[in-house]
Amino acid sequence: MNSIKVRTDLALEARESMEENARECRGVSVEEEYRKESELRITKVVIETMNGAKAMGKPMGTYITLEAPTMAQPDEDYHEEISGELAKQLRKIIPDIEKELSVMVVGLGNREVTADALGPNVVDNLTITRHMVKEYGKAAFNKKQIHMVSGLIPGVMAKTGMESQEIIKGVVEKTKPDVVIVIDALAARSTKRLNRTIQITNTGIHPGSGVGNHRNAITGEALGVPVIAIGVPTVVDAATIVSDAFEKMMRQSGEEPLEIQDELLAGLGELYNMYVTGKDVDYEIKQISHIICTALNSALEI
Amino acid sequence: MNSIKVRTDLALEARESMEENARECRGVSVEEEYRKESELRITKVVIETMNGAKAMGKPMGTYITLEAPTMAQPDEDYHEEISGELAKQLRKIIPDIEKELSVMVVGLGNREVTADALGPNVVDNLTITRHMVKEYGKAAFNKKQIHMVSGLIPGVMAKTGMESQEIIKGVVEKTKPDVVIVIDALAARSTKRLNRTIQITNTGIHPGSGVGNHRNAITGEALGVPVIAIGVPTVVDAATIVSDAFEKMMRQSGEEPLEIQDELLAGLGELYNMYVTGKDVDYEIKQISHIICTALNSALEI
Amino acid sequence: MNSIKVRTDLALEARESMEENARECRGVSVEEEYRKESELRITKVVIETMNGAKAMGKPMGTYITLEAPTMAQPDEDYHEEISGELAKQLRKIIPDIEKELSVMVVGLGNREVTADALGPNVVDNLTITRHMVKEYGKAAFNKKQIHMVSGLIPGVMAKTGMESQEIIKGVVEKTKPDVVIVIDALAARSTKRLNRTIQITNTGIHPGSGVGNHRNAITGEALGVPVIAIGVPTVVDAATIVSDAFEKMMRQSGEEPLEIQDELLAGLGELYNMYVTGKDVDYEIKQISHIICTALNSALEI
Amino acid sequence: MNSIKVRTDLALEARESMEENARECRGVSVEEEYRKESELRITKVVIETMNGAKAMGKPMGTYITLEAPTMAQPDEDYHEEISGELAKQLRKIIPDIEKELSVMVVGLGNREVTADALGPNVVDNLTITRHMVKEYGKAAFNKKQIHMVSGLIPGVMAKTGMESQEIIKGVVEKTKPDVVIVIDALAARSTKRLNRTIQITNTGIHPGSGVGNHRNAITGEALGVPVIAIGVPTVVDAATIVSDAFEKMMRQSGEEPLEIQDELLAGLGELYNMYVTGKDVDYEIKQISHIICTALNSALEI
Repeated sequence: MNSIKVRTDLALEARESMEENARECRGVSVEEEYRKESELRITKVVIETMNGAKAMGKPMGTYITLEAPTMAQPDEDYHEEISGELAKQLRKIIPDIEKELSVMVVGLGNREVTADALGPNVVDNLTITRHMVKEYGKAAFNKKQIHMVSGLIPGVMAKTGMESQEIIKGVVEKTKPDVVIVIDALAARSTKRLNRTIQITNTGIHPGSGVGNHRNAITGEALGVPVIAIGVPTVVDAATIVSDAFEKMMRQSGEEPLEIQDELLAGLGELYNMYVTGKDVDYEIKQISHIICTALNSALEI
Repeated sequence: MNSIKVRTDLALEARESMEENARECRGVSVEEEYRKESELRITKVVIETMNGAKAMGKPMGTYITLEAPTMAQPDEDYHEEISGELAKQLRKIIPDIEKELSVMVVGLGNREVTADALGPNVVDNLTITRHMVKEYGKAAFNKKQIHMVSGLIPGVMAKTGMESQEIIKGVVEKTKPDVVIVIDALAARSTKRLNRTIQITNTGIHPGSGVGNHRNAITGEALGVPVIAIGVPTVVDAATIVSDAFEKMMRQSGEEPLEIQDELLAGLGELYNMYVTGKDVDYEIKQISHIICTALNSALEI
Repeated sequence: MNSIKVRTDLALEARESMEENARECRGVSVEEEYRKESELRITKVVIETMNGAKAMGKPMGTYITLEAPTMAQPDEDYHEEISGELAKQLRKIIPDIEKELSVMVVGLGNREVTADALGPNVVDNLTITRHMVKEYGKAAFNKKQIHMVSGLIPGVMAKTGMESQEIIKGVVEKTKPDVVIVIDALAARSTKRLNRTIQITNTGIHPGSGVGNHRNAITGEALGVPVIAIGVPTVVDAATIVSDAFEKMMRQSGEEPLEIQDELLAGLGELYNMYVTGKDVDYEIKQISHIICTALNSALEI
Repeated sequence: MNSIKVRTDLALEARESMEENARECRGVSVEEEYRKESELRITKVVIETMNGAKAMGKPMGTYITLEAPTMAQPDEDYHEEISGELAKQLRKIIPDIEKELSVMVVGLGNREVTADALGPNVVDNLTITRHMVKEYGKAAFNKKQIHMVSGLIPGVMAKTGMESQEIIKGVVEKTKPDVVIVIDALAARSTKRLNRTIQITNTGIHPGSGVGNHRNAITGEALGVPVIAIGVPTVVDAATIVSDAFEKMMRQSGEEPLEIQDELLAGLGELYNMYVTGKDVDYEIKQISHIICTALNSALEI
């Protein structure tokens, strides 16, 4: 039914858009937990086999999603619960976190475009310790154990002329962190998930929805150290919005949608390079940056 | 046919969406000029009667539109032509510009939201003279005649708790400019016009597409001095995108769209407060802010 | 001894620079409180008579200063103590705060100059309620009593062409708040106080250290409603630094400084329009903006 | 006479502060050119020997200084002359510029501190071509020859936890540019030179005034490719201001300054980490960023 290839960076949505029967395919396990009082839903999708990866259109690995309808709204206590849960999940997925690690946190995206500024925002506000530990030792922090945290904001290709991967790889080879954590703004399929969802994965970042261009992937394979990615959907492709609305409507009217969709596709040409975002995106990005920043600071404190 | 009310702030688009026959209604005159070598199209719509205003859904007055496909692209010579033409049109529409005027330029919008930052950007970079003229006289500028230019960035209601109109009105009553020029980011109906179109009008700004809420209008009537508005469409409502794509498709397939549209409408609920914008919006807004700023500086130099 | 007129916006420093004997002048009362565990010093200077005002070079009124050496450093619990104390002092000095008030908070200064961005930073992050109360009533907040809080960032004269006073006065007359709270970055005399001190006063803002130009004062007299000013010294005039270092040195060497100072003055000409600020000013301004913002939100919540 | 070590990053000032007779030391050649009508002064200092380097406290190499009193003021035609001259000097000092080069432009400094944001500002606005040339070839630019320009903004150690040198070196080794151009804000000795002077040198950047810490130098030796540095003095150390004013005064009064200076030094302790900058620093940095950006775009266009 999906003759139009809809883009989503969320494993959760990739699974939702699979045919009913395909969902039970071997190689993809799903666990879900819902906390009623806080309306926080935690979903863990593990793609365990190549078949599962093919069916999902995503690489093998673990994808944890935190969803909360009020994530971007101004209730500080509630955010503490989300950032607390996020920190817990991060400590589970970061390898060897019980040892002293050197962790490089990378904020992808363009700081001048509101919906793309999540990564730079998080890194701008993170507690950075690497230079202090190198200069003064652990003593400066009054702790027995301490991670060395560094931060990098590589910028976008239109402004650097370089792939983010080239920049990150160069700095990784020079400063040799044990693990890289990448923060990025994602594209979702549903507007309901915009700024309401955080995805953590140990598969890194695959430009172009995991399809094609692996030259620029920011993954463990590419960088030579484990890569954890934290992503938040902040935009929906404009073409996705239209094709979804259309599909919904066709289904309601009981019509056969396939034929017309091709004509629709042609008409969507002008939507190329357009995206949909919420009117409060500036406030919401700040809130979620704060949640992620708090969670990282907490997870990386031994 | 328009059972879905589509929002546009452009008189040009309001006219396009009228029924073929209705376009020839009395009370609306249209003049168009096209400059082949520069691809610059200038359209002047004058709504002369109450009937025309009703048919168009816009107040009586003059609406001049400059359209150029490459407006937001980096060719400096070309921008000079656009800003030169804009300056010329501004000098025609600002009343009594041959006399010495006190001109207040107001930048509406939220400087932290890329697509809404046009107004603040323009005012931030404008040549401001009022305080110099008041302090040192015209002598400071080596000119016989000089306008006093002041600038105001009132902010948005969510951050001020006040209507922009209240703030502007208060400052107008205190500093008594002869004319107010308001810059604002607009909503268009077509993505083709995003960041490619500048509209000048002597009707001011009417929140909510001129329908309803006149309490907050920023108009000559409200402020007590003439108001010229300069607007650039930087977003399209997400619901508009969907309903337009749908209408186009239905027309192509020869179907009767009316019935299904109601169902569609319900499905669009989640698009409320969502907008569509281009991926290069940050760069494009800067380019167009620069064009408008250059044009204002030139038009306001005697 | 002070042949060089040293500028300070702090009543505390004005008093310190008075001759020993003059300090006991009638008309100026001083109370001091020191909290050992938190190193927080609270000083209340009340100028009660015209004579006192003349001796101090400051208008009659109350000046409360909170000083803490670690104010700009990253210890969140400690900041809670400072913002809590600030909130307490604000509730004492804001007239009729036990009633429902309409409060306009004004952020003076230039948001693009780090050391001058304190005011805009505070207002940018304040909880604004006026528009919500006007639209939905108190019910929206689940409270019996609620203040209507509005926020204004007037900008600086070089960018607006208008005095801040003109803009504020216009908006005050239009929106009729019961009290105005003005936030501003101040000049101190001592680098030790930079970003370590918060002054609250019920005398408003007097451009040029209360000397001269009353046309532009932002005071109760000028605006017609009580004005509370919150200020933080973020810069020291470069000339002040030099003349203070010089005076200190002369005193140590037992020399008679008067004669030479005149020659020094001439040499300081090139320091005109120069100021001294700390290397961490960007981080420190953010910290203190956050303290003031938290205190205001707390003080204005009934 | 210089018992207080005064910091300057300008070779020009280093030479001025040498003893009269020392100036004629072998190994330092100076050429000066003054253009009366444009008030532009161009000075070329070449340190040719190790003795010269020792006497100057700067590494061997070429230092070209452009000085113009109105550099930061708003006269666009004049800036064209400065940026034109800067482009000419850059084409002389960049090795092999007549061939096709891969050039990496690095903007050092902290974009959130006005006086330190010069480097990030320049790179933010530069024409970047590397990714276009790699993707589409020279054809995309309609030129026979084209340089590949990339841009990097590494951030400051307090925010990255890494030395700028580590980041740059990593990216250089990965993307292999033929030459690196580094932009940085400098410290001057005299307030007269603030934002009025541009220095170009082929010696790169030596943290701590070329004394000590070579671990972090950004030089040809460190990076393995030629490094051209472009610097503008935007601050003066507060201690420098005081000690200079003092020295001047002592000289005028005919006293012997040495003894007292030691006491002065102690009194300057609190000036540590304080700097002096002009009140219009935000506007001036923008102007000079624009001049350098224009010059680089022009110099790097074959």
